[in-house]
Amino acid sequence: MCLKERLYAVTDHKHEEIKLVVVGSVGLDDIETPFTKRERLLGGSVSYACAGASFFARTGMVGIVGEDFPEDYLALYRHFGIDLDGLQRAAGKTFAWSGVYDADMINRRTLSTALNVFADFTPELPDPYRDAPFLLLGNISPELQLHVLNEARDPRFVTADTMDLWIETAREPLMELIGRIDMLTLNDSEARLLTGEYHLKKAAAKMLEWGPSFVVIKKGEHGAMLFSRMGVFLLPAYPVEEVVDPTGAGDTFAGGFMGHLASANEASETVVRESLLYGSVIASYGVEAFSLDRLQALHIDQVWDRYGEFRSMLHPGV
Amino acid sequence: MCLKERLYAVTDHKHEEIKLVVVGSVGLDDIETPFTKRERLLGGSVSYACAGASFFARTGMVGIVGEDFPEDYLALYRHFGIDLDGLQRAAGKTFAWSGVYDADMINRRTLSTALNVFADFTPELPDPYRDAPFLLLGNISPELQLHVLNEARDPRFVTADTMDLWIETAREPLMELIGRIDMLTLNDSEARLLTGEYHLKKAAAKMLEWGPSFVVIKKGEHGAMLFSRMGVFLLPAYPVEEVVDPTGAGDTFAGGFMGHLASANEASETVVRESLLYGSVIASYGVEAFSLDRLQALHIDQVWDRYGEFRSMLHPGV
Repeated sequence: MCLKERLYAVTDHKHEEIKLVVVGSVGLDDIETPFTKRERLLGGSVSYACAGASFFARTGMVGIVGEDFPEDYLALYRHFGIDLDGLQRAAGKTFAWSGVYDADMINRRTLSTALNVFADFTPELPDPYRDAPFLLLGNISPELQLHVLNEARDPRFVTADTMDLWIETAREPLMELIGRIDMLTLNDSEARLLTGEYHLKKAAAKMLEWGPSFVVIKKGEHGAMLFSRMGVFLLPAYPVEEVVDPTGAGDTFAGGFMGHLASANEASETVVRESLLYGSVIASYGVEAFSLDRLQALHIDQVWDRYGEFRSMLHPGV
Repeated sequence: MCLKERLYAVTDHKHEEIKLVVVGSVGLDDIETPFTKRERLLGGSVSYACAGASFFARTGMVGIVGEDFPEDYLALYRHFGIDLDGLQRAAGKTFAWSGVYDADMINRRTLSTALNVFADFTPELPDPYRDAPFLLLGNISPELQLHVLNEARDPRFVTADTMDLWIETAREPLMELIGRIDMLTLNDSEARLLTGEYHLKKAAAKMLEWGPSFVVIKKGEHGAMLFSRMGVFLLPAYPVEEVVDPTGAGDTFAGGFMGHLASANEASETVVRESLLYGSVIASYGVEAFSLDRLQALHIDQVWDRYGEFRSMLHPGV
C-alpha cells in the first residue's frame, strides 16, 4: 500500500550515506501458532532489525542467503530502503528455522534449525559500511561480532546482542567484545548466567563495570530495563491488542532503537531512553502480523501516533 | 527502631478521624521459601493492606481473629497507628495458611488453609468507620464485600479486589458489587476469566462499562496496568534487589495506594496514578522481609526517597 509514502526508508534515505550497519542472520522460518501455520517466511535477526531501523535511518545489512532465497524477499528489503551491498549470496540453502508457539503466544519450542550457508558465514563490511557511525551486532557468535567490529572504523556507538549459547561456549571472546561496545543487550536469565548474580541490578552493575555505558535487560512481553551510570529506566512493553507472531520482536526492538539513535546521531541518556521507546513501538507493530507483513504496511505517521500514545501510558500523573 | 518517628501513623494520625477503612482477612501464615522457613507469621490481606495504608492515612481495620492471636501482633497493629475498633475477636482459632515458594520466589503452592473463625465472619463497621470517605474491600466473598458497602455511608471512593474463586462461584453478587464501586483490582488471568476477553484492553473496556471508573490489572512482579476513561497507565514494578517474601505484596500495594489516595482526599486521574506509584513503593519495601517486618522498620523518609528514585526510573528522557 503506502510503501512509497514511507517518510524515511524509501523517500528520504535511499540515497543517503549508511548511518547504521546491522549484522545477523537471515532465515526462512516455518512458524506454527495456536491459530495458524506459515511456511518459509522471511525471518532472521538481521531482517527484523534492518526493517525496524529503516523507519529512521539508512541501514546497511550484513548477512548471508542461499540460492533458494526468494527474489521477492530481496525486493521487500529494497522497499524498506535497506542497503544490500553487505548481503552475501552463497551456494547452498538459506538458514532455516521452524518453531511452534504455546497457547500463551510467548513460550515457543524449536522444531528444527538448519544452519546451511550460515554455517560458513564470514561477515564482510563493504567499504562504505566501515564508516557507519552506528553498529548493531546481532546475536551471532562473539568471534564474528568481533570480526565485524574490527572491520569498522571507529564507530560512534556499538550495540551487541548475545545469548546463553555464547555465554556457555564462547565466554572469552564474548568478554573481549563486551569490553569494546557501548551497549549490551540480553535477557534476564542470560544476564544472571553471564554474571553469576541473581539480582538484576547487581548483574547490570557488574556488566557496566566491564565496559559498556548501557546495559539493556530484555523481559519479552514485560518490557526491558535500561541500566547506565544515570540509574535505571523501566521500559514497559506497549500493550499490543492482538499478538499474531512474536518472532523477531527483540530484533525489531533493537533495530528500531538503533535506527532512531542513528537518526538522532547522539547517544545521551535522554536520546537512548527515547530511542528505546521508539524501538518498543516498532516492535509492537511487528508482532501484529507474521514476518515483516505489518512493518511493510506501516506508515511513519502511525509510528508517531503510537509513540505519543505510549508516552501518555508511561506518564505518572497525566 | 524508628517506629516513634514515623511521620503519619504514630505521630500525626493516631487521633485523627478514620479516613480509610479496609476489610479483609487476618491470617497466621507458615511460609517456606528456598532459603528459609517461618511459622505463625502475621499475615492476611487486611494486615498487609492496613500496614501499607498507615504510612499515609488513619486507617480502620475490619477483620476477625481467634483466641490464639498473639498480643504482640495487636501491639504491632497499634504501632502502625491502625485503628482496631473494627477487629473482632471470636472463640476459636485464627485463620491459618501455609504455602511454599518455588525457586523463582514468584510461584507458590498452598499447603493448607484453615478458615477457622474466618468461616463465620460477618464484618461490622463501627459507627465512626461508616463515614470514612475511602473504602478498600479486600479479597473476601462479594456477599461480604456488599455487606460492608451497604454499611458505609456514601463513601467517596471504593476499591474492591477479587479473585478467580469468586468469579467462578459468586458471579452474580460480584457483578452487583462491580456496578457500585469506583475501582476494581484483579490479576490478568482473572480479568480474562471475568470478561471472556483474552486481550487485556478489551477486557478492561468491558469492566469499565460495568461501572467502575478505574480498573487495575495486576501482573505481580511485572507491575500493573491502570485503565480508565483517560486511557492506559503502565506501571512497572519497582525492581527490588532482594525479594525475601512476596506474600501480601498485592495487598500492601492496594493499601499503600488507597492510603495515599485518602491522604490526598481526591481521586483524579493524576492522583490515582501517583498513588499507584506510592502503593508500588510500599509493596517493594514489604517484600524485602517476612510479614510486616520491613514495613515495621520503614521510615516515611525512605518512602519519599524511593518514590523519587522510582519516578526517575519511569521517566522517558531524563
